[in-house]
Amino acid sequence: MKITRTVFVSLAFGLLLTGTAQAAEQKFTVVINAYDTTIPELNVEGVTVKNIRAFNVLNEPEALVVKKGTSVKITIENKSPISEGFSIDAYKIQEVIKAGETKTVSFKADKPGAFTIWCQLHPQNIHLPGSLNVVD
Amino acid sequence: MKITRTVFVSLAFGLLLTGTAQAAEQKFTVVINAYDTTIPELNVEGVTVKNIRAFNVLNEPEALVVKKGTSVKITIENKSPISEGFSIDAYKIQEVIKAGETKTVSFKADKPGAFTIWCQLHPQNIHLPGSLNVVD
Amino acid sequence: MKITRTVFVSLAFGLLLTGTAQAAEQKFTVVINAYDTTIPELNVEGVTVKNIRAFNVLNEPEALVVKKGTSVKITIENKSPISEGFSIDAYKIQEVIKAGETKTVSFKADKPGAFTIWCQLHPQNIHLPGSLNVVD
Repeated sequence: MKITRTVFVSLAFGLLLTGTAQAAEQKFTVVINAYDTTIPELNVEGVTVKNIRAFNVLNEPEALVVKKGTSVKITIENKSPISEGFSIDAYKIQEVIKAGETKTVSFKADKPGAFTIWCQLHPQNIHLPGSLNVVD
Repeated sequence: MKITRTVFVSLAFGLLLTGTAQAAEQKFTVVINAYDTTIPELNVEGVTVKNIRAFNVLNEPEALVVKKGTSVKITIENKSPISEGFSIDAYKIQEVIKAGETKTVSFKADKPGAFTIWCQLHPQNIHLPGSLNVVD
Repeated sequence: MKITRTVFVSLAFGLLLTGTAQAAEQKFTVVINAYDTTIPELNVEGVTVKNIRAFNVLNEPEALVVKKGTSVKITIENKSPISEGFSIDAYKIQEVIKAGETKTVSFKADKPGAFTIWCQLHPQNIHLPGSLNVVD
């Protein structure tokens, strides 16, 4: 009788302690921004750089990390002037977000590993990929 | 006596609960891709960009995360048309993977911290670095 | 009485077991490097690339991951020839590190989520952003 009670109490404490270390749910906001940079010649602090031409779209933040089992909700805000893609193949996510719009994707992070977050619409070296890590 | 028994049971529950949260092993696949992009002028959804020239090699996924103590196995597939490097200095990893080939590296993630995954053959702003995080 | 004692012992074991899985402190070193690449024409292993011009500043490593509750200390070494910025808005971090100098930022990672590490001085597609993940 006494053992049953103490085991129950121990279990309760165990769940409590373990529970504080596990996230049931994690929300992220990823902002997609386009950066268009042209620098014919620039002198900064005595250093000269020139002939720089770069156009890139970035997901900010780029890398997302959760524990396995977490319910993930990602709100994607597209601040690029054109439509952008947001895909995570392993989780069957493939969204197109129009310029100025916001979409939300939700999933249970039940597959451990590292997965590429990529834009299915544009070259990967223009819209740089991010990553999702689900840690076991 | 009673205390000894209940302590044993508590410990067993504790190990069980803690145990479910630890990964013994994690496998990753990283694909190395080269992207060669030239856009003299492009109009998309009413937005014009021009004079874009970018050549980059990317590791996909770029960021890997494991718990400390995990046995890590990374399979690296080189889909670039030339040899590419894959180095993680803190874990004494330095591989060259020929075009179209695949190599596997294995190690015990016993050092916590964040480590750069980089190509020892090419400039870092052409073959962009990734990262390995070992979480304590 | 007996229950009180066993509960206390259970709690002690629980804390012990949970304690081993939690990092009290994590130190990182992030090196900021500038890469200036110009390739008029290059033939490597029978593959020709040309007209490559890229200037980028990178944080190495780019992605940092800790458990919620960790005391984080980041040492930032600026090896770029000019001043560089290091900002994490959610943790009210906004530093300028002069060329050749080193700064250290410390904070308690008490807000879970993914946060952009960005340079407040330069375009994001020139000095590429990193990320901080605080895992609950």
